Amino acid sequence: MSVPQAGQGMKPKTPQESLAISTHRVLPNDTNTLHNLFGGRLLEWMDVIAGVSAHRHCRGVVVTATVNHVAFHSAIPFGSIVTLEAKVSRAFDTSMEVFIDCFVEDQISGERRKSNEAIYTFVAVNEVGRPTRVPPVVPETELEKRRYEGALLRRQLALVLSNKLEPGKATELRKFCTS
Amino acid sequence: MSVPQAGQGMKPKTPQESLAISTHRVLPNDTNTLHNLFGGRLLEWMDVIAGVSAHRHCRGVVVTATVNHVAFHSAIPFGSIVTLEAKVSRAFDTSMEVFIDCFVEDQISGERRKSNEAIYTFVAVNEVGRPTRVPPVVPETELEKRRYEGALLRRQLALVLSNKLEPGKATELRKFCTS
Amino acid sequence: MSVPQAGQGMKPKTPQESLAISTHRVLPNDTNTLHNLFGGRLLEWMDVIAGVSAHRHCRGVVVTATVNHVAFHSAIPFGSIVTLEAKVSRAFDTSMEVFIDCFVEDQISGERRKSNEAIYTFVAVNEVGRPTRVPPVVPETELEKRRYEGALLRRQLALVLSNKLEPGKATELRKFCTS
Amino acid sequence: MSVPQAGQGMKPKTPQESLAISTHRVLPNDTNTLHNLFGGRLLEWMDVIAGVSAHRHCRGVVVTATVNHVAFHSAIPFGSIVTLEAKVSRAFDTSMEVFIDCFVEDQISGERRKSNEAIYTFVAVNEVGRPTRVPPVVPETELEKRRYEGALLRRQLALVLSNKLEPGKATELRKFCTS
Amino acid sequence: MSVPQAGQGMKPKTPQESLAISTHRVLPNDTNTLHNLFGGRLLEWMDVIAGVSAHRHCRGVVVTATVNHVAFHSAIPFGSIVTLEAKVSRAFDTSMEVFIDCFVEDQISGERRKSNEAIYTFVAVNEVGRPTRVPPVVPETELEKRRYEGALLRRQLALVLSNKLEPGKATELRKFCTS
Amino acid sequence: MSVPQAGQGMKPKTPQESLAISTHRVLPNDTNTLHNLFGGRLLEWMDVIAGVSAHRHCRGVVVTATVNHVAFHSAIPFGSIVTLEAKVSRAFDTSMEVFIDCFVEDQISGERRKSNEAIYTFVAVNEVGRPTRVPPVVPETELEKRRYEGALLRRQLALVLSNKLEPGKATELRKFCTS
Repeated sequence: MSVPQAGQGMKPKTPQESLAISTHRVLPNDTNTLHNLFGGRLLEWMDVIAGVSAHRHCRGVVVTATVNHVAFHSAIPFGSIVTLEAKVSRAFDTSMEVFIDCFVEDQISGERRKSNEAIYTFVAVNEVGRPTRVPPVVPETELEKRRYEGALLRRQLALVLSNKLEPGKATELRKFCTS
Repeated sequence: MSVPQAGQGMKPKTPQESLAISTHRVLPNDTNTLHNLFGGRLLEWMDVIAGVSAHRHCRGVVVTATVNHVAFHSAIPFGSIVTLEAKVSRAFDTSMEVFIDCFVEDQISGERRKSNEAIYTFVAVNEVGRPTRVPPVVPETELEKRRYEGALLRRQLALVLSNKLEPGKATELRKFCTS
Repeated sequence: MSVPQAGQGMKPKTPQESLAISTHRVLPNDTNTLHNLFGGRLLEWMDVIAGVSAHRHCRGVVVTATVNHVAFHSAIPFGSIVTLEAKVSRAFDTSMEVFIDCFVEDQISGERRKSNEAIYTFVAVNEVGRPTRVPPVVPETELEKRRYEGALLRRQLALVLSNKLEPGKATELRKFCTS
Repeated sequence: MSVPQAGQGMKPKTPQESLAISTHRVLPNDTNTLHNLFGGRLLEWMDVIAGVSAHRHCRGVVVTATVNHVAFHSAIPFGSIVTLEAKVSRAFDTSMEVFIDCFVEDQISGERRKSNEAIYTFVAVNEVGRPTRVPPVVPETELEKRRYEGALLRRQLALVLSNKLEPGKATELRKFCTS
Repeated sequence: MSVPQAGQGMKPKTPQESLAISTHRVLPNDTNTLHNLFGGRLLEWMDVIAGVSAHRHCRGVVVTATVNHVAFHSAIPFGSIVTLEAKVSRAFDTSMEVFIDCFVEDQISGERRKSNEAIYTFVAVNEVGRPTRVPPVVPETELEKRRYEGALLRRQLALVLSNKLEPGKATELRKFCTS
Repeated sequence: MSVPQAGQGMKPKTPQESLAISTHRVLPNDTNTLHNLFGGRLLEWMDVIAGVSAHRHCRGVVVTATVNHVAFHSAIPFGSIVTLEAKVSRAFDTSMEVFIDCFVEDQISGERRKSNEAIYTFVAVNEVGRPTRVPPVVPETELEKRRYEGALLRRQLALVLSNKLEPGKATELRKFCTS
C-alpha cells in the first residue's frame, strides 16, 4: 500500500510549531457524580485544543475526523489543574494526526503527573468544506519520531476497522501483528 | 490468552436491556466556526448516554475507561436533530464495551440517516472506587452477535497498543491480521 | 364553539410516530441549593424534547406556544437518571399539544418511577414565521385516547384564561365544571 | 371548600416586598434555530427569579411546585434585552403563587413592551424538606388585588386537573364556568 | 487638559434612567473549589448588566472598553442571592463610565449587605463599529454627584497608565495626588 | 509607607515558574450581538488562568482579590484563537499581582497579535480561608523587572482609591504624579 503524502512542495513543519497548550481547572460543572472530572468534558477539551494544534500546522479550517484512542487511567478530582499539550505527530495528504498529552497538578501539593494521552485526527477543509492539502511533518525529538512512525500503523488500523482497507493490504499492521 | 469473564453466576442481560436513548437538537452553543455540530460536544453527549447504558447493565456506578474509536463521517449542521442509541455489546470481568449509534434527522425534511458510530468502554466501581464484577451479555440479533464477537479483538488491540499485552499473545488480533 | 381542525387531507399520524425520548443524568450544573434537579433545568429539557416530538409530527419548524401545566411532585436527587418521553396528543389547525412523561431511575438501585408529567403546546411555522397546518392525530392506546379527548378541554381553558374566549362559549369546560 | 390559610399570626407582606427583578440579554446560547430566544431558556430564567421572589416572601428555602401557565405570544429576537419582574400574588398555608411579567426592550430602539406573563407556584420547606408555613399576602394595587382574587380559582383548577379535588367541590371554578 | 464632552445638544439623562438590575442565585456552576462564587463569573455578570445600563443611556450598541477596578472584599457562598445594580455615572464624548453595586442576600436569613462595587467603561458604536456620540449625564443624588466628579480623575488615571497622557498634563490626577 | 514583604525565608520564585497558558477558540457561546468575543467571557477566562498562575507561585488555595485594570483595545471576532499567558509579577505578604497577556490568532491567516493585557490580584488562603504568606518574586527579564517595579505604584493606587491609604502617604504615587 502506498502511503498518501502530505503536500509536496509545501514547507514542512516540526511538531513544536503546532504545539497548543490549554490549562483548565476542574470546576463543579465539569464533574461527575463521584466528584471527579467526567470523561465527556475531557474529550471536549481535548477536541478543542487538538483542533487549535491542527490549525497551527496547516493554517486553515480543520474538522475532527476521528478519535483513535483515549484511555482514562485514573480519576481526576474536583479542583485539579489539568494541562493539555497537543502537537501534530504526522500529516497525510489532507489529514493530520494529533497527540494530546494530559497532565494533572494537584491543587494543594502542586505535584504534576502525566494522566493520560489521546490521539485525534483532523482534516483540513476549504471554504466549501472540501479537503485541502497540508504540509508534511518533520519530527525532531525521539518521542516525536516514535509517534511519527506509529502513525502509519494507526492509520491502517483505522482503515481496516472501518472496512476501507483489506487486512491483507495493511502492510504495517501485518508487520506489527506478527512481530 | 484467556478471556476475562463477566461475573459468573450473575444473571446475564441482553443488549436490549441496556438500551439508552438520547435526542438532542444542535443549538448555537453546540456548533463550530462552520456552523456544524462540533466534535467535542458529540463526544460529550456520547459519553453521557453510554454511561447510562453501562449503568443499566450493571446497576452500579460506572466510570469511562476508554474511547476506542469514533469517526466523524459527515458534518451535522446547526438545527439538526441528533439521536444517540447506546447498548452494552459485551462485558469483561469489571468492564463493559458500549456501542453508540448516532442518527441525524434533517430539521426540515425529517430524513433520518446513520451518521456515525462510536465505541466506549466503562468500568463498574463500588463506593470506594474499586472495580466490581458485572453481569455477562447475551447478544440476540445478528448485529449484536457480530459486535459481541468483535469486542474481543478490540480489547486485545487496546491492550497491545497500551503495551499491556505482547502482540504475540494477542490471538484474536493475530488471526485478524493474517486473514 | 366549533373546534379548529388539523390539516384536512393531510395524512394523520399516531402519537407513537412522534415519540421522542431523551435521557439525562443530573450533574452538578443541573442542581439547586438542596442538591436536587432544579425546576428550571427540567423545564428546559422538556421544552427541547417536546419540540422534537412536535417536529416529528409536522416535519416543519415549530415554536413553543404555551406551557399548560407542570407539577413537580417529588425532588429528583443529584446523580439520578431522568428519562423524558414526549408524544403529540392532539393537533389543532396549526398547533400541537404534547405530553411529556418524566421517569426517574435511581443511580444505584436502578428503580424506575414516574416522576411527573407536563403539557406543552407548539405551533408550526414556515420560513417567515407564519403558522402552517399540521396533520391530525389518531390516538391508539387507551391513554392516548384519554389525552386526545382532554386536549379540547385544556384548549378551552387556556383560551378562557387568556381572555380569548368567553366562559359561556367554552362548551367542554362547562360540561366539565358541572359534572 | 375551605381555603387553606397562610400562616396565622405571621406578619403579612405586600407583593412589592417580594419583588425580584432580573435583566438578561439574549446571547447566542439562548437562541433556537430561528435565532429567537428559545422557550426552554425563558422558562429557566423565570424559575430562578420566581424562586428568589418566593424566598423574599417567606425567607426560607423554596422549591418549584408547579408551572401553571406560560404563553409565548411573540418571538423575542437575538440581542433583545429581557426583563423579568416576579412578585408573590398570594400565599396558601405552605405554598406561594408567583406572577412573572416579562418585558422586552429592542436592542436598538429601546422600545419596551410586555411580552408575556407566567404563573409558577413554590412550596417553602425546612432543612429536611418538610413544607413550612408562609406569611399571608396583602395586595395593594388594583392589579395585585385582581391576581390575589384569581389565585383561588387557579388553585382549584390545578387540584381538579390533578384529580385531588372533585369538580363539584371546586366552588370558585363552578362560579367561574357558569358566569 | 480639556475634558471631552458628551454629545452637545443631545438630551441629558439622569443615572436613574440607565438603572439596570439583575438578580442571580449562586448555583453549583458558579462556584470555585471553596464553594463560593468564583470571581470570573461575577465579572461576567457585571459585564452583562453594565452593558445593559450603558445601552439604556445611549440607546445604541455598546462594547466593553475597560474594567477600571473591581474589589472582591468577602466570599459569596453557594446559594446566596446576588443583586447587581448598574448606572451610568458619567459620559465622555463616545464613552460611558458605569458603576455596578453588588448586594448579597443570605439564602436563609435574607439579610442584605453591600458586597462590593465595580467600575466598567463602555463605548457606543454604530453598525460598522465606529464610536458614536452619547448624551451627557446629569447626576441627582449626593452619591451620583460624587461618582460624576470622580469619573474625571479615573479617566485621567486610565489614560496615564496606558501611556496615552503624560502625568504632567493630568490636572485632576495631580490635584488628587498632592491633596 | 513601608512595603509589606512577601514571606521572609521562603524560597523566591521567578515569574517564569508561575507561567500559566490557556488557549481558547471563540465559539458561538462566547460572542456578543456583534459576533465578537464578549467582554464578560474574556474576564472569566482571565480569572481562571490568573488563578492557576497564582496557585503555581504559592502552591496553595487562592481567591481573586481585585481586578486592577483591563482594556479591550480591539474586537476579537468569532472563530479567533485566543491565548492567555499569566505570570505573577510581584508578591506582597499574602497577595500576588498577576499580569495576563492576551494574544489573538486569526483563524485563517494565523497572524498573532497582542490584543490586550490585564492585571488581577489574588490572595493565598488556608483551609479556613485565612490569608497566608506567599514566596517573594525575583524578576528576570526587562519586562518582568518593569512590571515588578510598577506593582508598588498600582498597589498604592488601589489602596488610595478604596480609602485605605491617604494620598499623602502614598509615596510612590506622589512620585509618579509629579514626574
